[in-house]
Amino acid sequence: MGSLAVADRNATGWAAMDSSGVLSPYTYSLRETGPEDVFIKVLYCGICHTDIHQIKNHLGASKYPMVPGHEVVGEVKEVGAAVTRFKVGDLVGAGVLVGSCGECTACSADAEQYCDKKIWSYNDVYLDGTPTHGGFSTAMVVNHRFVVKVPTAIAAEKAAPLLCAGVTVFSPLRHLGLTSAGRHGGVLGLGGVGHLAVKLAKAMGHSVTVISSSSEKREEALSRLGADAFLLSTAAGAIAAAAGTLDYVIDTAPAVHPLEPLLGLLKVDGKLVLTGVVAEPLKFSAPALMLGRKAIAGSFIGSVEETQALLDFCAERGVEAAVEVVPVGEINRAVARLECNDVRYRFVVDVGAGKA
Amino acid sequence: MGSLAVADRNATGWAAMDSSGVLSPYTYSLRETGPEDVFIKVLYCGICHTDIHQIKNHLGASKYPMVPGHEVVGEVKEVGAAVTRFKVGDLVGAGVLVGSCGECTACSADAEQYCDKKIWSYNDVYLDGTPTHGGFSTAMVVNHRFVVKVPTAIAAEKAAPLLCAGVTVFSPLRHLGLTSAGRHGGVLGLGGVGHLAVKLAKAMGHSVTVISSSSEKREEALSRLGADAFLLSTAAGAIAAAAGTLDYVIDTAPAVHPLEPLLGLLKVDGKLVLTGVVAEPLKFSAPALMLGRKAIAGSFIGSVEETQALLDFCAERGVEAAVEVVPVGEINRAVARLECNDVRYRFVVDVGAGKA
Repeated sequence: MGSLAVADRNATGWAAMDSSGVLSPYTYSLRETGPEDVFIKVLYCGICHTDIHQIKNHLGASKYPMVPGHEVVGEVKEVGAAVTRFKVGDLVGAGVLVGSCGECTACSADAEQYCDKKIWSYNDVYLDGTPTHGGFSTAMVVNHRFVVKVPTAIAAEKAAPLLCAGVTVFSPLRHLGLTSAGRHGGVLGLGGVGHLAVKLAKAMGHSVTVISSSSEKREEALSRLGADAFLLSTAAGAIAAAAGTLDYVIDTAPAVHPLEPLLGLLKVDGKLVLTGVVAEPLKFSAPALMLGRKAIAGSFIGSVEETQALLDFCAERGVEAAVEVVPVGEINRAVARLECNDVRYRFVVDVGAGKA
Repeated sequence: MGSLAVADRNATGWAAMDSSGVLSPYTYSLRETGPEDVFIKVLYCGICHTDIHQIKNHLGASKYPMVPGHEVVGEVKEVGAAVTRFKVGDLVGAGVLVGSCGECTACSADAEQYCDKKIWSYNDVYLDGTPTHGGFSTAMVVNHRFVVKVPTAIAAEKAAPLLCAGVTVFSPLRHLGLTSAGRHGGVLGLGGVGHLAVKLAKAMGHSVTVISSSSEKREEALSRLGADAFLLSTAAGAIAAAAGTLDYVIDTAPAVHPLEPLLGLLKVDGKLVLTGVVAEPLKFSAPALMLGRKAIAGSFIGSVEETQALLDFCAERGVEAAVEVVPVGEINRAVARLECNDVRYRFVVDVGAGKA
């Protein structure tokens, strides 16, 4: 059990109090560090589009007060008696989930992100009946099975987005057997997930084509992110000329968009990987899939094991997220800018600044 | 070269002369049996829905006269000098394709059905510039690479539908690694392809659930075809109760239909396999795919190698198509009945009856 003072268990987070989504300081008690728990002093936490959906109740299931944040990097301050993988002082990460049943087929296959009883890191209820709260907070207590080590080769603030955006790309590429060098991949959209898709695919030795509806993205795709080619999604001629050239497309678009051009870009056996939550139905034509044995594959974040593998891969290959760090006091302004896609490419909140 | 008389090279087929789709006798010359060719006296040929689309120009690319038919079983009458796999007297089959480039990635991977230069067995042009004609004819000359052996354990007329409908099911199950015993599969639609999906899945040791919009199919699914369960696609309660139970669904529906209920039936990592050509767009919701790492996979017939593997599998396991054999003189009536789905489950035309 803990050696921390009682006062340390009072966390101060930034909470949405209603569907206006405005975040304000909110103090709550963390549970005691149980035998399998890790007490994490939060240093940095990325802002994901999903955080906006949650704080503004776009999905209709929000409970308040809600402390969001699921791209968490912090320092271990205390570990439970049964925890052997972490020790005080370790730099660690936590992501979208903080629990799962541990027994179902998905959990047994290291795919606990598909467990029906998964526990979200915020806006959910923990095993002890208390609400879960996320990473825009001074501290979190997390079961060690949902904690990963952050290699020191990666700057802490640039590691945070790997815990959700990064693994959202890494998991399907690995699951679908698409990580070997020499592949040709496509990336639709250049937000938090998309920019990491380009960086990760390049680090895997892939040739990468960025597809975007905005010609303004051409320069940044090619020069800043190192993509090999750029396709304007409205340029029918260029799209047609590139038909049948891609092994996969990572589709990060968060709104309804036509799938036909993307399917046309795929080689035989190519995969269109959907990673963006789109509420309205998407459409496709069956022959566009059938005549090339193509597939539309869904994927949702990644497992803890995949997250650790991603972090180790990034440390080895020097991959980091491109971030804009903002002080925690400016979190509402950052959320507002993210709503306008005014960020290159991920806001990371400096939660721990100035705290011991 | 050939030992057949010149007269034997005059084939009499049943041709559509225009988009009315009425078939009438039509005589044309077959090419000489080249070094790599097999001369096949046609015995039986199944009628596929695609034949209707072609003879009536539903796809807008029909050329007349057109002798349709791509589920062909016949007897070898002559082989070219370079042909070693077949000899005179062999029972053989030919399917949807009679040629491909032989050099592209797809061809090199025994997936020539995805070759961009594939040659269809009818309504296409052969390498020598002559029109290709299908199996509703006294004879065909086919390159041996596109000919398979029909095991004698299978009745010839019951083997014919395996060459298109059968391999349309077998290919995706094998390609997706879904042929091992103990799987739980779903089959949407009980036509030519669907009834073989049930039979093949049962022969693989799968538990099979038939899904249909018609409650009249319940009895035949369970009693006649041996399915383990039946779900009425409009029975929301029963569909919900079966959520997350299927490893795959073979979707044979040839018209627009909702995909959400089918995706809901799939387990984590489940595959919805589309085999029916639907002209209008199909719709789905991205989260329904993402939250279970599910995939919508297209598939188109199967390779020659897969077709041979299927025939051997069927011979070993005693799987045959359920057919209604019709004399060639009644082919137009059979086509009309097929348009009304009035067949259990495949018409096979007795093309060779009464001919030497």
